[in-house]
This record gives sequence, C-alpha cells and structure tokens, in this order.
Amino acid sequence: MTKRVYNFYAGPATLPIEVLKKAQKELLNWENTGMSLMEISHRSKQYDAMHKEASSLVKELMGLSDEYKIIWLQGGASTQFWMVPLNLRIAGKPLEYVNTGTWSTKAIKEAKFYGDVKVVASSEDEKFSYIPKNVKFSDKAAYAHITGNNTIYGTEYSNWPKTSFDVPLVCDMSSNMMNKVIDSKIFGVIYAGAQKNIGPAGVTLVIVREDLLKRVPEETPTMQKWRTHSEKDSLFNTCPCWAIYICKLCLEYLKSIGGIPEIEKRNRQKAKILYNLIDKSDGFYKGHAQPDSRSLMNVTFRLQTEELEQKCVEEALKLNLIGLKGHRSVGGMRASIYNAMTIEGVNKLADFLTEFKENNR
Amino acid sequence: MTKRVYNFYAGPATLPIEVLKKAQKELLNWENTGMSLMEISHRSKQYDAMHKEASSLVKELMGLSDEYKIIWLQGGASTQFWMVPLNLRIAGKPLEYVNTGTWSTKAIKEAKFYGDVKVVASSEDEKFSYIPKNVKFSDKAAYAHITGNNTIYGTEYSNWPKTSFDVPLVCDMSSNMMNKVIDSKIFGVIYAGAQKNIGPAGVTLVIVREDLLKRVPEETPTMQKWRTHSEKDSLFNTCPCWAIYICKLCLEYLKSIGGIPEIEKRNRQKAKILYNLIDKSDGFYKGHAQPDSRSLMNVTFRLQTEELEQKCVEEALKLNLIGLKGHRSVGGMRASIYNAMTIEGVNKLADFLTEFKENNR
Repeated sequence: MTKRVYNFYAGPATLPIEVLKKAQKELLNWENTGMSLMEISHRSKQYDAMHKEASSLVKELMGLSDEYKIIWLQGGASTQFWMVPLNLRIAGKPLEYVNTGTWSTKAIKEAKFYGDVKVVASSEDEKFSYIPKNVKFSDKAAYAHITGNNTIYGTEYSNWPKTSFDVPLVCDMSSNMMNKVIDSKIFGVIYAGAQKNIGPAGVTLVIVREDLLKRVPEETPTMQKWRTHSEKDSLFNTCPCWAIYICKLCLEYLKSIGGIPEIEKRNRQKAKILYNLIDKSDGFYKGHAQPDSRSLMNVTFRLQTEELEQKCVEEALKLNLIGLKGHRSVGGMRASIYNAMTIEGVNKLADFLTEFKENNR
Repeated sequence: MTKRVYNFYAGPATLPIEVLKKAQKELLNWENTGMSLMEISHRSKQYDAMHKEASSLVKELMGLSDEYKIIWLQGGASTQFWMVPLNLRIAGKPLEYVNTGTWSTKAIKEAKFYGDVKVVASSEDEKFSYIPKNVKFSDKAAYAHITGNNTIYGTEYSNWPKTSFDVPLVCDMSSNMMNKVIDSKIFGVIYAGAQKNIGPAGVTLVIVREDLLKRVPEETPTMQKWRTHSEKDSLFNTCPCWAIYICKLCLEYLKSIGGIPEIEKRNRQKAKILYNLIDKSDGFYKGHAQPDSRSLMNVTFRLQTEELEQKCVEEALKLNLIGLKGHRSVGGMRASIYNAMTIEGVNKLADFLTEFKENNR
C-alpha cells in the first residue's frame, strides 16, 4: 500500500486522494488522447473543453452571476498585490486596506507603488490576533482591500465589511477560498493562489466583476492587464495547464461531495475539534487568535516553552502528522486544516495532542 | 498497453516517456515522503533539495559559470517581454531588437512601454522566412534582444550576433532552449517558457548574468524585479513546484542520454530527415524558411492547395500523427520536433509524408 501521511502544511497543502489517484491514472493518456495533459496543446479542443469546465465549476460552486469573470493567472497572490492596484486605481482616489497580518502588510507595500494608500484598520496592536470590527471604508476609495484569512496568525473574517458598488471590495482568499458559503455579490474582486484550498501551486484564480476590467488604461503592458486575460479566457498566452487541470479535478470532487455547504460543515467540525481541545487543555495549549476571530483553516497555538513545542512537533512527526511547526514570525505550532484535510486526520491529531498533554503536563 | 500518439504540437509539446512514467509512479508518494510533490511545502527540506538540483542541472548541462543566476518564474515568455525592459533599461539608452517574427514583434511592443526601442534588423520584408545576417547592435544600447527560434515561421539562429559586455545579448529561447550546444557566455540573459523543450507549461526559466541584476531600481514592485527572485533562489513566494519538478526530471533525462551534445546530434538528424524529404519532393512540399535559416525545432511547409494541406493533416491524424496544422498566421503545415520527439516519431512522419506524396501528386 502507498505510504501517505497526514499533512498539516500551510501550503502547498494536502489534496484529495481521489484527485491524486485520477491524475495518476491518466498521466500518460489523458482522456484517451494518447497524450499527457502536460503534453497537449492549450489550443486543442480537448484542452479547451477542460479549461472552460474548470471556470464554469468555479461559477457554479460559488453561485457567481455572469457579471463575474474567471481568470487563471500565474505568479501567486504576491503578483496580485501589484496587479490589484494597477488594474483598479483611479487618479486622486485613495487605495484603502485593512491590515490583519503579514500578507496584508505585503499587499499594502506593493499598492504604495501605484497610489495613495490608506490603512483604515489594523490589528497590529495585538500581534494580529484579531480581525478588526466595524471596519469602515470611505466612499471615495478606488477600492477596499482585505485579506480573508491570515495563515500565519490564524485569524479569519466571519463577517465581511460592507462597501458601496462604486468601492469594490477586493479580497485575498488564498487561504480560505471556497471554505465556506459566502455572498459573492458583495465582492468586486476575489483572488487566490490555488495551493491551499483548491489545487496545487502554480496557478492563481482571479474573479473580477466585469465593469472593473475597464478601469485599466489601454496603454499598459499587455500581460499586466486583467482585461487581456479575461478577453482571451485566460488563453492569451500558454496557461499553466496542469495546475488548472488539478484545480478542475478538485472542484469536481468538491461538487461531488455536496459543494461548499458540505465542505463548510466539515471545516467547522474540524476546527471545533481542535479549538475545543485547546480551550479544555487548562492552558497547556494556548491559542494565538482571539476566539471570535479564529480561522477555520489555520489553528495556531503555543505551548509553555519552545522546547516543549519542538518536542511536540517531533513526536507528531513520528506518527506521520506532518507540518505542525508554526511560521517563523510567530513561532509555536500551527495545524492547517484546509478543505482537503479529512476529519479522520484532525481526529488523529487531536488524539495525539491529548496524549501529549497527558504525558507532559 | 497505454495509448500514445506522435505529438507534433508546437507547445505544450511531447515529453520523454521516461519522465512521465516516473512522475506517474511517484505521484501519490514522492521520494517516500508520503505526499505528492504537489502537496509538500515549498519550504520543506525535501522540496528544497529537488529545487536546487533543478537549478544546478541547468548550470551543468549548459556549462554556465557561477556569474549566471538561475531563476524559475511564472507567466511565460510573454511576461518576460515586459520584465526584460523593466529590469535592464538604462535612462537615455536605446533598447535594441531584431524582429524575426510574431514573438519578436510582441516583445518589441511591450518594450516600448519602458523606453526608446530601435529595431536594428528585420526579416518582415520576406514574410519572416529568414534570419537577418550581420546584425549590428550599437554600443550605446541598454541591451540587444533576439528571438532564438521562431516557432511560427520555422527559422532559427545558427550564428549568434556579437555584442560587447556592456550591451548584454538577451535571447528568448522558449522554443530552442538546450536544443544545441551554445557558447553561453556571449549571453547576458536567456529566458524560456518551459513547455517546448525542457518541461511542461507553467514555469519560465530565466538565466541572468549577475551584474545585470543590479540595474533595476530598488523602488520597483517586489515581484517585478528579477533580483527579488534571484536573492531568494526563486522561493520569495510559492513557486510552481510541480512544473519545476517535471523540468528537473527532463533535465536528468537529458543528462542521462549524454546531455546537450547528444540531443543536438539527434535534433540535427531529425531535422535532416524532414528537410531532405521536402527538398527531394519535386515541389510537392514547399518549405517556408530559407535553407540557411531553417529551424531544428519547427519544420514549416506548404502543399499546393489548402484542401491538400487539410487532407494531409487529417490523414496523418488517422495514423496518430498529431498537431501538424500550421499556425493560423502562416497556414500550411508544421512539424514541431523538440528535444523529446524521438527519431522513431520523425521517421513515422516521413514515411507518411512520402506515401501521401505518392498518392496525391
């Protein structure tokens, strides 16, 4: 039997075993073309049908209306940090951001190259352990930017800020894309590196409300404009075919189990198992995020000493529970439990953490 | 037995069967990690070792000295069309280009956003059927840009233009990367989308002479600077892990068969088979490229009528000879015979073309 571990990495992250098995099976001969998906032309009719199906699954699963365009890009969310301001800026209008951690901070840094950035709210005062409440963006902003989930600090929006139609809400959902049902029409732009919740590294999903594609001046380098890619259905140049294909398999799988409502149920159940364990550990495990800001995706916690944390990570490793070390900027431990992490995996981790507490209190 | 065809697509293109089989075998459990390569963190020591090995194979195979840096990026050569001028421009100096076809034209268009572009030579006067001879770049240029091989017109440089050290020669080698032995030290920058000769779509290899990394101003969006990626060994943000891994397998395979000298021998043999057939067809097949400019990678030719071309493509398809339709901008037929196309495949095609001629003259 193939060796498999429980993978709690923050991303690239675990993928559904059903998806991997299908990809493996058809790796040399995709859909009876006699070619690997990696070998077939992105201009072939077979590839094109698969590509369109991937986009249409995004719209179906998220309940997106036709005013939203699906774009598959490259370069990760870090590339969107500059593509967002470049594509959405309006002369004289501020670019407004909420700062909830490392990724927001990076997005803010890049936006400053393109306009006057205003940080309207921040949780830096308490080590990014919470999501600011009652965030207000001005009516004059070119757009309003938030980071949906913060992998490093383990916080996540459960209520979205409101903006007017003219101030599009832009959200980096790299680490919580499709993890729960959302009212997608409140967003102007959603973007996400695929490698946490919807596929492998190497492709970035960008969802843009159609009217916003018009903002960027025509006289802009071709590849920098979302409009270029939207007009050509993400086939202006050779797209990252394999990464889009794996996303499509992941989206099909998500649909087959009941879509986003079902995955939300499972995600809430998984998060509850770990947060309950933390809360009932009499302080042995201390969660980083404030309870009302807790992430469904990244459970961050500390133990009494760094030595104990190190020991915990090492003992987990022996049980094939992988990737539990916290990010270097906050330390401690982190269990990333994205869509593809099973309840079984979370229960294994919970059993281990319970036993570790008994043996080390 | 798995169905496999002979794939003459211009890219994404055929890959070595040995590479595909290895990728398939370890898809669920890469190097006994219990994870797919797609699932493992790009910060893990196992991934890091593979990533470094891919870069070091590039240097070894191409005989690159340590003054060259290897960067793995995303977005294809089309993204380099603007990254090249952004990273190499010098105020007041012209950006010099040779125009040998569609891809050069696109590169020139994007460079105009960043400086004063001079086209020092062009073969547009004869439908891009040749590579200009005795190309001279000025000593004042910020850089000199050429397109190493032209997929659409089927032409390729066999002699490289000379430039001084201060005028770095920049070459788009997307379609002839590692297809023959080159004197790499005459180049300042080499870039190539991987999906023709060295791997799958989704990663772009950029080779930059170290001194050139200093040109771009610090105050430039982070992801737009080659320097950012070079300093972090292409791990500033999540890299396209799978695409780099497949490149690494392709490079290992190339090394195992004897490296670039051996693949050059095979490529010359393959090209000779097809060009001989064209030249000896009494005009039944007419090559597009002038003989001294012929590409080793893309053999472009026409038949007497479009109907006959259509018939030829369709009959080839029945024999599992795929992807022979020429690019829409020149029409006719095109056989792309990149590194991974076998001599056996080219012989099958030659046999078919010989028979087709007999039956249709």
